[in-house]
Amino acid sequence: MASDTIRVGIAGYGNLGRGALAALARCPDMRLAGVFTRRDPTSLRLPDPATPVLPLDEAAAHRDDIDVMILCGGSKDDLPDQGPELARSFTTVDSYDTHARIPRYFEAIDAAARAHGNLSIIAVGWDPGLFSINRLMGEAILPAGATHTFWGKGLSQGHSDAIRRVPGVRAGVQYTIPVPEAVARVRAGEQPSLSPREKHRRECLVVLEPGADARAVEQAIVAMPDYFADYDTTVRFIDEATLAREHAGMPHGGFVIRSGQTASAERQTMEFSLKLDSNPAFTSSVLVAYARAAWRMKAAGETGARTVFDVAPGLLSPRSPEALRQALL
Amino acid sequence: MASDTIRVGIAGYGNLGRGALAALARCPDMRLAGVFTRRDPTSLRLPDPATPVLPLDEAAAHRDDIDVMILCGGSKDDLPDQGPELARSFTTVDSYDTHARIPRYFEAIDAAARAHGNLSIIAVGWDPGLFSINRLMGEAILPAGATHTFWGKGLSQGHSDAIRRVPGVRAGVQYTIPVPEAVARVRAGEQPSLSPREKHRRECLVVLEPGADARAVEQAIVAMPDYFADYDTTVRFIDEATLAREHAGMPHGGFVIRSGQTASAERQTMEFSLKLDSNPAFTSSVLVAYARAAWRMKAAGETGARTVFDVAPGLLSPRSPEALRQALL
Repeated sequence: MASDTIRVGIAGYGNLGRGALAALARCPDMRLAGVFTRRDPTSLRLPDPATPVLPLDEAAAHRDDIDVMILCGGSKDDLPDQGPELARSFTTVDSYDTHARIPRYFEAIDAAARAHGNLSIIAVGWDPGLFSINRLMGEAILPAGATHTFWGKGLSQGHSDAIRRVPGVRAGVQYTIPVPEAVARVRAGEQPSLSPREKHRRECLVVLEPGADARAVEQAIVAMPDYFADYDTTVRFIDEATLAREHAGMPHGGFVIRSGQTASAERQTMEFSLKLDSNPAFTSSVLVAYARAAWRMKAAGETGARTVFDVAPGLLSPRSPEALRQALL
Repeated sequence: MASDTIRVGIAGYGNLGRGALAALARCPDMRLAGVFTRRDPTSLRLPDPATPVLPLDEAAAHRDDIDVMILCGGSKDDLPDQGPELARSFTTVDSYDTHARIPRYFEAIDAAARAHGNLSIIAVGWDPGLFSINRLMGEAILPAGATHTFWGKGLSQGHSDAIRRVPGVRAGVQYTIPVPEAVARVRAGEQPSLSPREKHRRECLVVLEPGADARAVEQAIVAMPDYFADYDTTVRFIDEATLAREHAGMPHGGFVIRSGQTASAERQTMEFSLKLDSNPAFTSSVLVAYARAAWRMKAAGETGARTVFDVAPGLLSPRSPEALRQALL
């Protein structure tokens, strides 16, 4: 089997890249063939010192050594350029998650991958990703119905960043929390129409700069448009030691609930939920499973951009179709 | 669009067939082109009297009028023969659910479909079906972990049939009920090893024949090997009117929970659950969505047998790939 082992590259070595490296170690059919970084390669400390660490801007020279490249950069600053660039040389998977720009990103990746005979699966993870699959299947199976997505309890990176931009804030995190009453109504099949405020509340834990005005900081946060103004937001002040001790993890999760009717009095409810101690470690585990699928689709002659909607579940598993039918169907 | 409408046949008009007919009415891209039955066609009362009702044994003569045939027969007596026979003439989907015999059934269907250039998706529904997909994805994404499937609360047809074979029993139903403590342990990420008795209990509601010995009936039920002996089983006696009034529905549901670790202290939990007022109406809704996928796979030139593991989620939706990426990703 050694010659069939899928050789995987990791582009970017932050939280996601470290998670992908750990996930690969749990997959005997895959092996880490190299980590690509924009930093000085000698500055990275990997678990196995024998792992090749290479400059990201020389990645293309290693195209014959990598079957699939997992792109572990951020959606805002890294992937819009890196994605299309790396899709010229590699079969790729990425976790691009700027929902509104997915169609444009898809087109850019599709053109690059197609032109160079590669295949790329974009927007892989849990939302977009597993949650998207469940939204699609809920709607396809129960067309008369309504879908609700709830997120949390979990740390929102975007909202935490927004807090940290407020003058007087030294550090802070934001937890998104589903409103239990709303979840209960949706689970009961009510199909309610819910405002953002009715679905989620936001909890901010803030470390102030010395001498900052707590009241002013709180006002600036709760009134911030787009991020907090449309929600019930609580701000709690904590010290730096508490932040480091109790809020260094990145838990997250959520629910996708489809509630529909078949006959008039028949309520049918489908729910998919995640409860994650580590959001990036889980996201990178999803990326690694889709890397396996990407390699298989490329090997079958497919090229261009794909999403999780285009990937048959069986391609994610290391087991053969026969074994899957026998054991898991 | 009319010429692109998928023409669907329904083979067998019991609970599943009626559910498929109702589900098709909610899918504007599909239309019911005929119901095929072993009964006297004139004896069937369909919602739309204009629907063609035809003898099942003459189905092959209508192969040019049907794009996909949904097989709504039973796994024990109907599908083992009907499945391969109809796969010679039609693209088919079915809900074959005898887990242990799936590999053999798959081979029979594959040979028939391949030889005649058709495509068949077998074992579609929720278990096997949606639950199988979630077992597969949980294992592929979190290879270090454990999967538990719970069923219920729901009416089990096989166990209800077993009750009705006990001497002295006039009628009865059996509900399978997950043990809440077991569900809670699994959800909490404990990955416990659970016996059948620890996972589910069984509740039997029985109408006695006049003069039957209640104590003897109860003993015969709870001691029945395979069906009840390995479970905590309760037997409750009710009258026929109560059975008809309160237990005529066929509710069911359950959970697939994957609990895994990424780093040593990181627990990650994925859960898929269903809460169904009507098991057959939901199963047939799943069948109709996979009928759409079967037609598309056949149109793309695929032939042979498939399972839900081979079907990309996007094929289930009437929306275009572009619309799906924009709206649901």
